[in-house]
Amino acid sequence: MICVGTELLLGDILNSNAQFLAQELAALGIAHYYQTVVGDNPARIQQVVTLAAERSGDAKLLLFTGGLGPTPDDLTIETLADLFGAPLVEHADLLADIEAKFTARGRTMPPSNRKQALLPEGAMVLPNPQGTAPGIIWSPRPSLTLMTFPGVPREMQAMWRETAVPYLRARGWVTTTIVSRMLRFWGISESALAEQVAPYLSQGNPTVAPYASKGEAKLRISVRADSTAAALAQIEPVEAGIRALMKDNCYGADDDTLASVVGDLLLQRQQTVAVAESCTGGGLGQLLTDIAGSSAYFYGGVIAYDNRVKVNLLKVEAAVLDTQGAVSAIVAEQMALGAKVLLHTDWALSITGIAGPGGGSPDKPVGLVYIGLAAPSGEVVSYRHEFSGYRGRDWVRQLSALSALDALRRNLL
Amino acid sequence: MICVGTELLLGDILNSNAQFLAQELAALGIAHYYQTVVGDNPARIQQVVTLAAERSGDAKLLLFTGGLGPTPDDLTIETLADLFGAPLVEHADLLADIEAKFTARGRTMPPSNRKQALLPEGAMVLPNPQGTAPGIIWSPRPSLTLMTFPGVPREMQAMWRETAVPYLRARGWVTTTIVSRMLRFWGISESALAEQVAPYLSQGNPTVAPYASKGEAKLRISVRADSTAAALAQIEPVEAGIRALMKDNCYGADDDTLASVVGDLLLQRQQTVAVAESCTGGGLGQLLTDIAGSSAYFYGGVIAYDNRVKVNLLKVEAAVLDTQGAVSAIVAEQMALGAKVLLHTDWALSITGIAGPGGGSPDKPVGLVYIGLAAPSGEVVSYRHEFSGYRGRDWVRQLSALSALDALRRNLL
Repeated sequence: MICVGTELLLGDILNSNAQFLAQELAALGIAHYYQTVVGDNPARIQQVVTLAAERSGDAKLLLFTGGLGPTPDDLTIETLADLFGAPLVEHADLLADIEAKFTARGRTMPPSNRKQALLPEGAMVLPNPQGTAPGIIWSPRPSLTLMTFPGVPREMQAMWRETAVPYLRARGWVTTTIVSRMLRFWGISESALAEQVAPYLSQGNPTVAPYASKGEAKLRISVRADSTAAALAQIEPVEAGIRALMKDNCYGADDDTLASVVGDLLLQRQQTVAVAESCTGGGLGQLLTDIAGSSAYFYGGVIAYDNRVKVNLLKVEAAVLDTQGAVSAIVAEQMALGAKVLLHTDWALSITGIAGPGGGSPDKPVGLVYIGLAAPSGEVVSYRHEFSGYRGRDWVRQLSALSALDALRRNLL
Repeated sequence: MICVGTELLLGDILNSNAQFLAQELAALGIAHYYQTVVGDNPARIQQVVTLAAERSGDAKLLLFTGGLGPTPDDLTIETLADLFGAPLVEHADLLADIEAKFTARGRTMPPSNRKQALLPEGAMVLPNPQGTAPGIIWSPRPSLTLMTFPGVPREMQAMWRETAVPYLRARGWVTTTIVSRMLRFWGISESALAEQVAPYLSQGNPTVAPYASKGEAKLRISVRADSTAAALAQIEPVEAGIRALMKDNCYGADDDTLASVVGDLLLQRQQTVAVAESCTGGGLGQLLTDIAGSSAYFYGGVIAYDNRVKVNLLKVEAAVLDTQGAVSAIVAEQMALGAKVLLHTDWALSITGIAGPGGGSPDKPVGLVYIGLAAPSGEVVSYRHEFSGYRGRDWVRQLSALSALDALRRNLL
């Protein structure tokens, strides 16, 4: 993989294209040994390509990102044509397509874009459905295939999926299929999870590997097989075994989020929820409404950042605030009950805590959070958490909102 | 820069270390031409290092990240020692330090960590204040300096700042200083901004370059000078000129956010704000409360996702909802007024819109958003936006919340 762009060498952008293509290659079972980043400099690009083309291996695929734009510093195509001694040829159909894309946006094509219709002789067009810069698929000599993509991630990904992957499959690059499934857990650390599923971690195909990110633990089950169906059949019993072992700690898989899982459960039960938020300031409501269609079960809520709002709208008792403080189990419970009554929902969730960096004390450190939950039965409960305050305000707020969703999920189950 | 790690080639992690070091090198004025990612494989690591050491240039610095851990697949140090023919030497002080770090966490050092105290003969220790894996600074031959860092970003960054940068400065690698300032704009496109400040974009030192991200346009002013003070003195008139030209469209610089700027203005005026959110579901409140200390001016608000909440709590007229629909100027205005009255604040902001992907119509497409603003005077106004619905629900919601903050900012000014 060769990523071209001076902006990468200056650190102006993060090379997320490299991660995307690396994941895709891994999933297709195509071994991938080197990534190089080089600036928009023809001599250095040629040096990198020469080296990559000479590295040992029977069949070689070089993936390029970047440098396909219309400006004079976008040099990838010219440089490759020059290196492999192929003339550039203007493609009339490409030129028409580029002009049409400008027309569709009510603009005239600037003359500089004309060069995007120039490709090395013998190269196939790798169509760009979203932008003006086409890529190429080109074998300038036997056992060497070059593919170029623009640096814009959205365009690159569409071109990869729509044209590059089918091409690689058709040409026999993809002989096995690797299928992965990510199981997601909340309320258990990565190390505790790894300990409980230890026998699974030492097995071969499927492999099971633990990960952690943003407060959640994950297990990736990966299998290499001849077909997707065969892979899924091998994953299924492993997943079932892990789920049986971990019970409610496993909240979902792949694209599931705590908010989507809670939403599905509420839809199934035809129940509704409201929120009352202090330290998260709206973050819990935002998570719930990340899900399209959440209006079927989420009515809304009260952001009670100031204590007067807790008293006036949520009917938290002023005396309780005075004696117990805003960050207390009883205030969390009164907030949840207040939201349930005010919004006429089946459930209500509340959050009150110390997000920091200020406001902590020995008794109530930064990271101390209470979550309240009012249930359809009228019962109200609360949960105490101490998140790692040293990890910062965002961390405490994010974990608070996610833990509130998890409390509702477990109660719905 | 050579980043070692099979997990990078599998796409398991994003190579944020490369961006960090690239930005740092740019800021120090050290030219940086290549980045290579290679797996935990001694032969391939040696091939990459040999190549990098042979590339032309008078003085060469190779920065390594990754492969310093205690497990058998962490091979960076052994591989470098082998390549340059230096024996590995155990450092008793390092070993004691690693053992002490385990003891401090109430653990015994596993035998595998012992190898982290082995460094090539002649290499300096690059201390790791946060983790167990030390790095090295090593000149195995004239005009070639190697520095190794662990892959953990937090540890790598601390080692870079505390030891590597002072070392580079002391050895004359850093001869000039590059200082940058990022001016931030809202309510103007990158291309319109670039047009208006065109004369600045063509000048040399300081250079001015336009950027765009997440709905905002930015201008980076960069200058190379002998000292930070000299650099700032050159930036100052350019910044003043651009600000005079762009007026209120420039909302801040560097780490400023719309929420922090609005917060500062409210603090200066000793005024307060509340929110009433429909399609953003709490996202505006969350942005306001991202700022530590926001309780001084943000009281809270109502998440009115369901129309009943708009009517019952915010006193939006049911007849208006019926005739105009929830996504209309009048509903935005009534929501803002309702929040201001209910929470007794000086200002109130409201948002109602169609975040999508469903719910759009020819009259009211996905991306149509009304923002309401109730002012201390009692006046209520609204603003109509059509964000690009095809860019997705998150985009519409994020731009809605930020545009609401911008509306308040401009009114405060």
